Amino acid sequence: MRRRFVILGHRAVSGPDFNLKDIPGTGGRLDVLVRCIPAALLTSHGVREDTDIYLVHLGPPEAPKVVHVRGAEVQHLNPDERTTAMLLQKALGAFTTGPVWQTSTPGVRVAAIGLEDLEAELEGTRFFRLDEGGRDIADVELAEDCVFMLGDDQGFTPEEVELLERWGAEPVSLGPVSLQADQCVVVTHNHLDRRAPP
Amino acid sequence: MRRRFVILGHRAVSGPDFNLKDIPGTGGRLDVLVRCIPAALLTSHGVREDTDIYLVHLGPPEAPKVVHVRGAEVQHLNPDERTTAMLLQKALGAFTTGPVWQTSTPGVRVAAIGLEDLEAELEGTRFFRLDEGGRDIADVELAEDCVFMLGDDQGFTPEEVELLERWGAEPVSLGPVSLQADQCVVVTHNHLDRRAPP
Repeated sequence: MRRRFVILGHRAVSGPDFNLKDIPGTGGRLDVLVRCIPAALLTSHGVREDTDIYLVHLGPPEAPKVVHVRGAEVQHLNPDERTTAMLLQKALGAFTTGPVWQTSTPGVRVAAIGLEDLEAELEGTRFFRLDEGGRDIADVELAEDCVFMLGDDQGFTPEEVELLERWGAEPVSLGPVSLQADQCVVVTHNHLDRRAPP
Repeated sequence: MRRRFVILGHRAVSGPDFNLKDIPGTGGRLDVLVRCIPAALLTSHGVREDTDIYLVHLGPPEAPKVVHVRGAEVQHLNPDERTTAMLLQKALGAFTTGPVWQTSTPGVRVAAIGLEDLEAELEGTRFFRLDEGGRDIADVELAEDCVFMLGDDQGFTPEEVELLERWGAEPVSLGPVSLQADQCVVVTHNHLDRRAPP
């Protein structure tokens, strides 16, 4: 089974000019996206090769931009926030003029595209949108290829919800407590691991 | 229901002299402990007031030392790794001569004690030890006051397992995939949230 996560960063910077000493403040809560990378791709002593993560950067100066990290190909990924932020900084500094994916480091690609442009990239998959009002993930049927869409600390805008509904995204809930984005990724993995071990 | 987590850091520094630019390398994988703090205490937009976390620092120069962070009292806790590490750095730099708890910042206490000295502190609670070979957490009966013991990336030593067994710690498993310590904390919370919402 293939697992993909899409995380929206409404204020997350789309360029490399943020300070590693203050990633939340200078990166537009980029720290939320950064933490989702190891949450999605790392286990205790290994990499989840069946998992991909797409980070949608909607903050200045060059929004929109998407960074895609592929578990099957990524190298030198550590669990700590600083080195993961540096990987992202490298991707956001890579030359990009249009909607064509460019590889910045092994397993990390970047393109100047937005959420709406991911439809083709994610074609043929079953979409879920994490939403506290949705159906319990434990009761949802899984597909061979699942995409989970997550908002950052600001959730989704009405336009994003409308777009995701057009893609057939089903709202699913993880439990009675509202969690941070990286925590949502970890819990989603656990539910999938229990039902369809990698 | 009260929830408590105890995380063992076998190489984690017990003093404040680590570099925030390289927490894993200069802190003896202190990053593992650091990430467990927001995993244990933070939700999407709040603090888990029913939760406490104890970090057992077993690395040089002043081991053993335990830092206790209390959800009901902690202030200014952010989810990012750097500021959380600074909170820990402050605690590890606080003057400590013996096994008496001293408060370094609101909700954060430190004492020069080891795992074995936590028995009195945790008295009257039900102990669980996270272990891949244990019973599925979904099948375990909960108590009003639960303590979950986690190893760092090195797991538990035979002596630690023996000590925890004397305390009656039951081995419990979170699923078929071996996770990082902070991921284990997040998944444990989700199982508890579903059965005994805070």
